[in-house]
Amino acid sequence: MKVPQGFQLAGISAGVKRSGRPDLGIIYADGPLHWAYSATTNAVVAPCVTRDRALAAGGGAVRALVVNSGNANCANGEHGERDDLAFATAAASALGLAGPGEVLSASTGIIGQPMPLDQLVAALPTAAAQRDDDSEGFSRAILTTDLVVKESSAELRSGARVLGVAKGSGMIHPTMATMLAFVMTDAVVKQPALRAMWQRVVDRSFNQVTVDGDTSTNDMAIVLSSCRVEADDSELEAALLEVATSLAKQVARDGEGATKLITVRVTGAKDEVEARRAARTVVGSSLVKAAVHGADPNWGRILAAVGRAQVSLNEAHVRVVAQGFELYYGEPQPFDNKQVSQALSSDDVLLEADLGVGSAQGEAWGCDLTEGYVRINADYTT
Amino acid sequence: MKVPQGFQLAGISAGVKRSGRPDLGIIYADGPLHWAYSATTNAVVAPCVTRDRALAAGGGAVRALVVNSGNANCANGEHGERDDLAFATAAASALGLAGPGEVLSASTGIIGQPMPLDQLVAALPTAAAQRDDDSEGFSRAILTTDLVVKESSAELRSGARVLGVAKGSGMIHPTMATMLAFVMTDAVVKQPALRAMWQRVVDRSFNQVTVDGDTSTNDMAIVLSSCRVEADDSELEAALLEVATSLAKQVARDGEGATKLITVRVTGAKDEVEARRAARTVVGSSLVKAAVHGADPNWGRILAAVGRAQVSLNEAHVRVVAQGFELYYGEPQPFDNKQVSQALSSDDVLLEADLGVGSAQGEAWGCDLTEGYVRINADYTT
Repeated sequence: MKVPQGFQLAGISAGVKRSGRPDLGIIYADGPLHWAYSATTNAVVAPCVTRDRALAAGGGAVRALVVNSGNANCANGEHGERDDLAFATAAASALGLAGPGEVLSASTGIIGQPMPLDQLVAALPTAAAQRDDDSEGFSRAILTTDLVVKESSAELRSGARVLGVAKGSGMIHPTMATMLAFVMTDAVVKQPALRAMWQRVVDRSFNQVTVDGDTSTNDMAIVLSSCRVEADDSELEAALLEVATSLAKQVARDGEGATKLITVRVTGAKDEVEARRAARTVVGSSLVKAAVHGADPNWGRILAAVGRAQVSLNEAHVRVVAQGFELYYGEPQPFDNKQVSQALSSDDVLLEADLGVGSAQGEAWGCDLTEGYVRINADYTT
Repeated sequence: MKVPQGFQLAGISAGVKRSGRPDLGIIYADGPLHWAYSATTNAVVAPCVTRDRALAAGGGAVRALVVNSGNANCANGEHGERDDLAFATAAASALGLAGPGEVLSASTGIIGQPMPLDQLVAALPTAAAQRDDDSEGFSRAILTTDLVVKESSAELRSGARVLGVAKGSGMIHPTMATMLAFVMTDAVVKQPALRAMWQRVVDRSFNQVTVDGDTSTNDMAIVLSSCRVEADDSELEAALLEVATSLAKQVARDGEGATKLITVRVTGAKDEVEARRAARTVVGSSLVKAAVHGADPNWGRILAAVGRAQVSLNEAHVRVVAQGFELYYGEPQPFDNKQVSQALSSDDVLLEADLGVGSAQGEAWGCDLTEGYVRINADYTT
């Protein structure tokens, strides 16, 4: 896709991936960027997360982001920290920037193996020279075992644009499911406003996706703005949410071994936080995920998942709906098993639960649990 | 196994299970029992859990417990409450007791289907007449799709005995993984002391087991004492812990689709609560479970699971050990992949993680994630 004004992207192969597929990406801006950052809550994090967090805390503008796939540079001790800094320093130099303080870094792939720094540094000038206004090369360069590229865009009334790219939960042995999301916009927005709206957007989108309940050491979601086109803050936030939600759903649909996208919508909750938590719990339940895989209208599992979500509910008024069919409303409802099972065999499944205590709602996205997931994560042995 | 003094057990088929296997069990005592109760934290619970909780809050002695398998009598609205009370009332009558206030009840199996009360009530006199001092019939009567009976016993110096039986995570469509555990002893113990020690025992045993992270609506763990043989409280607590831990491990090993028992031991934690939480998080990680299934020495997944457990850790001193092989200690350690993989192909796997911040420790038990688990829970379609 065409990138927003002020950005140039590149993605090439530096030879980190043995497959020869792209593994080095650059986002460059021709002026200082406003930006906001959200990263994994794991206590064990890669050095790129630590360094980017420090830059975010510093509050200054940045000019570029450099990312490699195929190696997460995580759990490598002090070597890892030095390699991450050297990677950003080399990127700054290749892009003609002042230093690593202007360059965010991200890594995804194998953990516990030394970063192939020499290869990446040698390839940076080539990547820098290939920058253009198309996102596809970059979007390919951040993938690990994802099956498809994940991109989404939106346009504001003023003509300002939002473009997001993400990688999802592919597994590169021996690492864990990881998600990276980079969203770019040319909408004019103040740094504090951007940071506040980004937290709200991430909470409603990327933080509502689960593939297997594990949390990566390298996850991050970043928004970058070149501030070229006037825009209304609330319109921008809506566009960011639209793009982020689309990417989140693309990540869920491309989850390991997945054959279906599952959307869980919780209504009637006390507040939005509880609605989102209940939705996450249902979509993350192994039993619900397996039932959806088998097209089994197993409302008992949905009810049990809601029950353990630590949310307020009124059991007598709880309602469970699958693909539009009411299965439970305070007590079991009669339904045609075959008909509902047929509806559940779609590759797009909507489960709804009303908690019966309020008016807040929330959504979460995930995928079905398949024998393919187990094969990918078990039978790929060292 | 032979039951402790003062108890009589029975287990027969009432015809609830179409297979004709036993599905109605009775524990009877010839005098008032001291007892303690721990049940699911799910907000949606079966009427038996609600009624037993009320009896526990009342604080009085009980004389018997009646349990059926094959039907969970859960999510049945007000009918369910009436059926549960009628079940306990009929049991009291068959056993010559004053009323349902002396009879605990438990149900496990299909949820959302009316309890076959008539069948159960009709079978109760037969069950009552067959009471004896052997536990096997009862242990069989509480199973759902468990593959094996789960029993464990211990003897105190004074001759007092502890006998425990449990059912694990079999799945009867359309219900969820459920666990029931009943422990009997003839050791003399005061009610308040028994309740306090039972909570500690449950926290260290049954609450440290996970098969798939879902929480049942019918789970319960009960200890009953006939108070016949003098015993030291701390010795009794140790015996209860030994029996409960053995049952917990038996439940894990017989988890759906499981081929291995996984024990996770966390050391070097700030306190025992954090040690246990970290151990639970590792043993519950789908990625760790799948890696163990594939005999893959994937320490990165163990490290990432510890990192998201919300516990204090010192990354530079974290240590990960699998089957005695050190894989990570602040940084990756060299190891022979083939050798460790061979060790992991055992059906009894020990994973250890030291958090490097204190001296507390804790254990948790689970099983590997297999294609069999997915088949059991997906392909068994309505």
